[in-house]
Amino acid sequence: MSDATREIEALIELMARLPGLGPRSARRAVLHLIKRRGQVMAPLARAMAEVAATARECASCGNIGTADICDICRDERRATGELCVVEDVADLWAMERGQAFRGRYHVLGGTLSALDAIGPDELGIPRLLARIPEEGIGEVILALNATVEGQTTAHYIADALAGSAVRVTTLAQGVPIGGELDYLDDGTILAALRARKAL
Amino acid sequence: MSDATREIEALIELMARLPGLGPRSARRAVLHLIKRRGQVMAPLARAMAEVAATARECASCGNIGTADICDICRDERRATGELCVVEDVADLWAMERGQAFRGRYHVLGGTLSALDAIGPDELGIPRLLARIPEEGIGEVILALNATVEGQTTAHYIADALAGSAVRVTTLAQGVPIGGELDYLDDGTILAALRARKAL
Repeated sequence: MSDATREIEALIELMARLPGLGPRSARRAVLHLIKRRGQVMAPLARAMAEVAATARECASCGNIGTADICDICRDERRATGELCVVEDVADLWAMERGQAFRGRYHVLGGTLSALDAIGPDELGIPRLLARIPEEGIGEVILALNATVEGQTTAHYIADALAGSAVRVTTLAQGVPIGGELDYLDDGTILAALRARKAL
Repeated sequence: MSDATREIEALIELMARLPGLGPRSARRAVLHLIKRRGQVMAPLARAMAEVAATARECASCGNIGTADICDICRDERRATGELCVVEDVADLWAMERGQAFRGRYHVLGGTLSALDAIGPDELGIPRLLARIPEEGIGEVILALNATVEGQTTAHYIADALAGSAVRVTTLAQGVPIGGELDYLDDGTILAALRARKAL
């Protein structure tokens, strides 16, 4: 790419570092943007600069917003006494898209990992425990991923809360809506069978 | 995503319009950027704003650069009398990565298409024909994609040059380097067989 000037090459290199884009798709994306530099590229650059300057983590729950305390933590209608614990902001967004949960969140930012030296302090678990009396939480819903790391972390939090009066629950496991048994793994089928309900 | 503030939602929507990214991967990319807002997101926004402000099409060949005439057209060492015709800037970049061609380019910006009302004028073919005497071109290499549209366009250009002294060539078709016969389509095998060479 001796022909593309340095600025364009630098942009392609930066774009290629995004998850889901490699060198080839970064080149395609940059060409696409350059062809629409007035209508798409300039607004995208402005939106990105604005978010880079204003985005921050909520001091209470770890969600991402543009204020010190996020919209959800500021919203008094969400002080329902329920606290949903998720691994990542992406999981919080997924829960919000579902529009089923009306309480507040606590974003761990990862899972416990001895290998990566991620302990309870790195995940803000002391802060989670402190929020329970502060905000009058009656139920902690552990919405962690159904992976070994997620479940290990869930058990750690459940143990830490064992002595308190708070109710600890977890998302149900079973057949996804629209799921076909033939495509499900054995573990999911087993979990769904064990948790079977009367029709 | 009622939780993500408006700026973040707007950024996700703009990112989701990039080729190769959908709504889901745009969310992932934006979260990735926000977590690295100082080291990655701000420089990316600056690089994008800079390219949006400075990128332009070369007035001579259609390549993208940051000057009215691109680096390749300004480079006197590339006045070899060979002109390589490509459909898109991405194809020009692919040729340059190969480092095999040392002449200049002509970027059509598409292929002839009656359906989309793209005729010779829209592709700058009159400008291509004008460059041949202006730049003392002796050979026009048609490096168009091996698609029906690419080959139709190649034949149109070859016909337009039929009366002139210029030599018109096209890229060889055959088995790609490292290609396995079992994975090639029948058309490629037929083309490779017809163009077989003595060992």
